[in-house]
Amino acid sequence: MERRFRLVLACPDRLGIVAMVSNFISSHGGSIADANQHSDSSNGWFFMRVEIVSASVNFSREQLIEQFTPIAQSFNMQWELSDSSQPKKVILMASKDSHCLADLLYRYHEGELDCEIPCVISNHDDLRSMVEWHGIPYHHVPVDKEDKQPHFDKVHQLIVEHQADTVVLARYMQILPSSVCDLYRHKIINIHHSFLPSFAGAKPYHQAHERGVKLIGATCHYVTEELDAGPIIDQDVVRVSHRDQPEEMVRLGKDVEKTVLSRGLRWHLEDRVLVHGNKTVVFN
Amino acid sequence: MERRFRLVLACPDRLGIVAMVSNFISSHGGSIADANQHSDSSNGWFFMRVEIVSASVNFSREQLIEQFTPIAQSFNMQWELSDSSQPKKVILMASKDSHCLADLLYRYHEGELDCEIPCVISNHDDLRSMVEWHGIPYHHVPVDKEDKQPHFDKVHQLIVEHQADTVVLARYMQILPSSVCDLYRHKIINIHHSFLPSFAGAKPYHQAHERGVKLIGATCHYVTEELDAGPIIDQDVVRVSHRDQPEEMVRLGKDVEKTVLSRGLRWHLEDRVLVHGNKTVVFN
Amino acid sequence: MERRFRLVLACPDRLGIVAMVSNFISSHGGSIADANQHSDSSNGWFFMRVEIVSASVNFSREQLIEQFTPIAQSFNMQWELSDSSQPKKVILMASKDSHCLADLLYRYHEGELDCEIPCVISNHDDLRSMVEWHGIPYHHVPVDKEDKQPHFDKVHQLIVEHQADTVVLARYMQILPSSVCDLYRHKIINIHHSFLPSFAGAKPYHQAHERGVKLIGATCHYVTEELDAGPIIDQDVVRVSHRDQPEEMVRLGKDVEKTVLSRGLRWHLEDRVLVHGNKTVVFN
Amino acid sequence: MERRFRLVLACPDRLGIVAMVSNFISSHGGSIADANQHSDSSNGWFFMRVEIVSASVNFSREQLIEQFTPIAQSFNMQWELSDSSQPKKVILMASKDSHCLADLLYRYHEGELDCEIPCVISNHDDLRSMVEWHGIPYHHVPVDKEDKQPHFDKVHQLIVEHQADTVVLARYMQILPSSVCDLYRHKIINIHHSFLPSFAGAKPYHQAHERGVKLIGATCHYVTEELDAGPIIDQDVVRVSHRDQPEEMVRLGKDVEKTVLSRGLRWHLEDRVLVHGNKTVVFN
Repeated sequence: MERRFRLVLACPDRLGIVAMVSNFISSHGGSIADANQHSDSSNGWFFMRVEIVSASVNFSREQLIEQFTPIAQSFNMQWELSDSSQPKKVILMASKDSHCLADLLYRYHEGELDCEIPCVISNHDDLRSMVEWHGIPYHHVPVDKEDKQPHFDKVHQLIVEHQADTVVLARYMQILPSSVCDLYRHKIINIHHSFLPSFAGAKPYHQAHERGVKLIGATCHYVTEELDAGPIIDQDVVRVSHRDQPEEMVRLGKDVEKTVLSRGLRWHLEDRVLVHGNKTVVFN
Repeated sequence: MERRFRLVLACPDRLGIVAMVSNFISSHGGSIADANQHSDSSNGWFFMRVEIVSASVNFSREQLIEQFTPIAQSFNMQWELSDSSQPKKVILMASKDSHCLADLLYRYHEGELDCEIPCVISNHDDLRSMVEWHGIPYHHVPVDKEDKQPHFDKVHQLIVEHQADTVVLARYMQILPSSVCDLYRHKIINIHHSFLPSFAGAKPYHQAHERGVKLIGATCHYVTEELDAGPIIDQDVVRVSHRDQPEEMVRLGKDVEKTVLSRGLRWHLEDRVLVHGNKTVVFN
Repeated sequence: MERRFRLVLACPDRLGIVAMVSNFISSHGGSIADANQHSDSSNGWFFMRVEIVSASVNFSREQLIEQFTPIAQSFNMQWELSDSSQPKKVILMASKDSHCLADLLYRYHEGELDCEIPCVISNHDDLRSMVEWHGIPYHHVPVDKEDKQPHFDKVHQLIVEHQADTVVLARYMQILPSSVCDLYRHKIINIHHSFLPSFAGAKPYHQAHERGVKLIGATCHYVTEELDAGPIIDQDVVRVSHRDQPEEMVRLGKDVEKTVLSRGLRWHLEDRVLVHGNKTVVFN
Repeated sequence: MERRFRLVLACPDRLGIVAMVSNFISSHGGSIADANQHSDSSNGWFFMRVEIVSASVNFSREQLIEQFTPIAQSFNMQWELSDSSQPKKVILMASKDSHCLADLLYRYHEGELDCEIPCVISNHDDLRSMVEWHGIPYHHVPVDKEDKQPHFDKVHQLIVEHQADTVVLARYMQILPSSVCDLYRHKIINIHHSFLPSFAGAKPYHQAHERGVKLIGATCHYVTEELDAGPIIDQDVVRVSHRDQPEEMVRLGKDVEKTVLSRGLRWHLEDRVLVHGNKTVVFN
């Protein structure tokens, strides 16, 4: 795909934002390949995402950022400008269950996910061979149940070392300490194996079976300090029936989990997910 | 459609149930038009539903019941035998919102729901004209917020008077007293405007908007004493996005609500829903 | 909802369109409530839809049109500017089947469809009472199979008389002559009871049953001279199984038909559907 | 899972089939774990599938077959009796596209598909490493465009050699000669990358893009001599929009293809798919 700059911004809504931004782009000869806006009438915020054909402007990302800063400041924007030729660095974290990891690795291998994967981290060694077949380093960082801190320290160190932009908890099954959550706010993506807010917490498929629901689901969300309560990126469901015992629900649920996680990650990698408060705007 | 007897049963699973039941039917010349079985390995129960072509047996429903009773007793069956030529009598209850009521009335009018509707009961007079256009009596039974008992007494009296088999709460918005719930156990169907167990209680669409979910749903369930916790018959969802304010969610949700309610009612009318504990087996 | 101007345009893609349009709007003090753009790289066209809060500009629709015309000309735009306070006039046409008509009338009655319905036209008298209950005039215009021209002349005359902007063929079952299709290009909406291009033509559910498909669908499209081949606005499907005879498929299909038609019409009424060649851009 | 015998049968419908079959089973002490029946009123055929807990009967599969044969003959049954402890032998065939193959291999690896995979056959060598990582032999059998017969002879030989019960064309892209199709009637499963009968033949996603459809799909079917016209096992769709160029449709379509193929294969492996004429009965 041709190289693009992606400008993503959120600010209090007021007159002339789109005009100001599009003038800025066209005054530098920028060709807009794709654009989305959203005004949220319930909170008075404005959200925008623009893809600019890089070849149409004579600037680097750094120069564009410098040029745009005064505009951004005058509108009190929260904003980012990324360059599609510099894909995000994504660390995948897993435990023993392989369905989400295998799906992400496959899509990465096929070029469906526009990112680099510097390594996979797991608290078990089970998935090493699968990961290494893809040519990706595998770090086995065990968890000591009595003292988890060394594990988290090592995880943190690996994230820093690899300069990761994004961390994906592909059924990692450990609760990251809030110190890490804070440092990587809206950069850590989790897949929860239920249709949140139903059945938050452990063993959701058993809870679902117990309650006799007719649909089960999965939720992809950014991780925040409050467990299972971060901004939701995507959700989906699959139909179940009285014939489905919990094990069968687990099997059906796995398919939904991997679908929802890979979709959410793809949107994140393309800078389509803007977070405001505890909710997301997804320009897809 | 040709007349059918429908035999529905549940009992502890053991050897020879299907053989015993199908022998009974074939020994009376009964032609099986449709049959379903389910063994629930998690609780050791067996469920069965058989449709018998009425013309193929020389018995009335009453005679068949008499003949089958000893078999049923020997297997400790909970069972019913209904006759499709005697459709259920269904009382619809509504408040001010018309979407579920209008949908059910339309389907009834088109012959899609195999039942009689002796009357509609509402605590408001708003929907009278719509109901009466369909030739169905409309009972306006107001609710006194200080003392709701007279309302419920009148409702109960109307149910008894019309010998209703089934009561549908088509967004009735009042909580029936447990005395009525007990009398009509697994006979009162409610539509809850959320994907239970998420957002049980009031204003679920506002709760859903607040939480930023990406799907909203509806749940059709039998009414029990515990609010919003009865056996689930059917559920469905619809996708929403950041663009959808609560009002828009309400509009989208209405479509799911009426779809789920009419589907659940249809299965109930055809004796496809068997309840065990707090869960349903739906032979659809 | 607050009053809006809706500017919809399509033109060959080139630099500065968004800047020019948004400058135009902000220079008149216009507050953008919603905006969408799309660049189609396969044909080099650009599409845009903007909703402007009417109260934020001191102009009437006519004045805005006058002001915008030079810009539109310089970019070779195909464009329209509508005023949400002047809802479209929609004539519904039906035959004997009521499901789509009843659904549209109900949604109109509930305020879900932002339009006026000056009348319903049918070649049969069956649905008169249902339509008149809604306070809408019903024109029974019979079809003489030997000579259909008088029917079409009368239909055309009614469309002209009522100054209809839009005609909805809600299972009208007659093929409009190309003279009428031409006059109301992209203004006549049809619901086809199959998932086009599968099973174009008559009796699609019987064709679907014959072929043993596992999903059946419906297609909402603009009517063009070539039967069942006009630009598709929306489609949807529903799952069927070996248990479903053609009659059952018809019943299930009706629900999809009405869902798809009302959704397509809603988008049309809100100026969300742009046609280019034989395809649509739907900003929803 | 506990071992099961699966009895699957189809015959002209008449009185007493279920009674005869269930008597047979219970007379040998057989415990029925699951059972489904279907009477097709449009053609007068009866279909049945019964799972019997193997441990509950004192017979081998061969003895049960011998005992049941007279009953089967008296009802003119087409029937099979399989033993879940003898999983089917499935040969996967692929070309260069890996998505379906990778998905099936993953599910096999995870124990989701109850079968043996003696080998993978491909006309290209590209996927060797992926297959061999799973410990499965890979046969590269090139196709000479001038004379494809040697390729098909070798393929046929490998099927025979490995005593395969089932062949899955996981995007194999070659048309098997009718001699092979005949030998393995209802044993060869194909995934077609469109929602048949729409867009049969080549490049369906480009056809779909050209036509401007709003949903694209995939179809899993048994291979017959007539291309893309065999009995359909399963179908599914995914929503697309004006934003999706053909390449994007291909990406979205791949997900549907693999979902539908693995679901169809799973049903086939569990003897849930009965073929009659050109249609399937799927007891799922």
